[in-house]
Amino acid sequence: MNVYLILAHPEIKSFNGELKEVAIATLTAAGHEVKSLDLFQSGFKTTADSADFPDFDTDFFDLQAAQATLNYPADITAEHEKLLWADVLLFQFPIWWESMPAPLKGYIDRVFTVGFAYNGRKALAGKKAVVCCTAGAPNSVWTKGNRGDLVDEILHHLFHGTFDFCEMEVLPPYLIGAAKRLSAAEKAAAIEGYIKFIQNICPVD
Amino acid sequence: MNVYLILAHPEIKSFNGELKEVAIATLTAAGHEVKSLDLFQSGFKTTADSADFPDFDTDFFDLQAAQATLNYPADITAEHEKLLWADVLLFQFPIWWESMPAPLKGYIDRVFTVGFAYNGRKALAGKKAVVCCTAGAPNSVWTKGNRGDLVDEILHHLFHGTFDFCEMEVLPPYLIGAAKRLSAAEKAAAIEGYIKFIQNICPVD
Repeated sequence: MNVYLILAHPEIKSFNGELKEVAIATLTAAGHEVKSLDLFQSGFKTTADSADFPDFDTDFFDLQAAQATLNYPADITAEHEKLLWADVLLFQFPIWWESMPAPLKGYIDRVFTVGFAYNGRKALAGKKAVVCCTAGAPNSVWTKGNRGDLVDEILHHLFHGTFDFCEMEVLPPYLIGAAKRLSAAEKAAAIEGYIKFIQNICPVD
Repeated sequence: MNVYLILAHPEIKSFNGELKEVAIATLTAAGHEVKSLDLFQSGFKTTADSADFPDFDTDFFDLQAAQATLNYPADITAEHEKLLWADVLLFQFPIWWESMPAPLKGYIDRVFTVGFAYNGRKALAGKKAVVCCTAGAPNSVWTKGNRGDLVDEILHHLFHGTFDFCEMEVLPPYLIGAAKRLSAAEKAAAIEGYIKFIQNICPVD
């Protein structure tokens, strides 16, 4: 399978960065192809604005109308090609404010365009959407009846508002709660669990 | 009352930009003080990363630990002063992907810091949080039983994950659905309703 891994964390040596490497090693060992993007380190532009569309009406910028021209800057076109190539989109990020870090939201704003991801084309339809995220609160906090459910409430805007809207195949996420307070044994267990999680989604070809 | 209005839309001449001006005019006419920030036009930095903390450990960047030093760059300190000054925070934005445009999320990531908004200090506690947003889908879509409820589901991460977490006083939002397809009369009615909405929250002193 072809897997596109997108990381959104400001520190490459963080647990999130480590989980990215774990995923790449696991997938590669199983014979899969992996491409990846580090949104913080790459400097990928993450604000959807008129600068992306210099040929569009400069007197009044309408983002959706501009995107609908299909006249994209090179970095967005390159992302579209990677997304088309991928069977699986794997998102790695820490939960910040019950959402993604802003650069990942900005990636979606810029790259999941009209005429590509929705309205006229559903280029992401059927692709697997997989989330691995860390959180400050322990796992028990993110279950229904307490604070909320990760998929249906906390990250509703990502799972339903984005993945479902693009008709992707949404898989259950892998959540590592209390990520900064894990013992060495707990961290090793979380990584071991993640390896199995990845292997289950992407078995050996 | 002191009102801080934060706009997140890439086009100043948009309906969102117009609603910002309506709010400022309404509030000013009623004797209130207003400050405002246009996140797209101002070029305010909206990625929370190590560049904000040059004196912090450069070998391993931990955002929360860096924020907890309370050693902030000047633009974040200036925002803290405006937030402390305000009785009401008024957020104006279009719903993109059942969430905010990335620059507003990035504002929260950067400015709602440890030691200011939570953990050790609750500087935003008791302040009114008000949202005015436009959406592509009609209002009827955003009600429970259909697609979801704006406060509890679509913008759960903002109303609950952010405002409630900071112990702000969360008010019902003002939503303008089908914003691009309104007739002139419907648009005028939406603006008239917004003026009353604002006047109800901030009556004449």
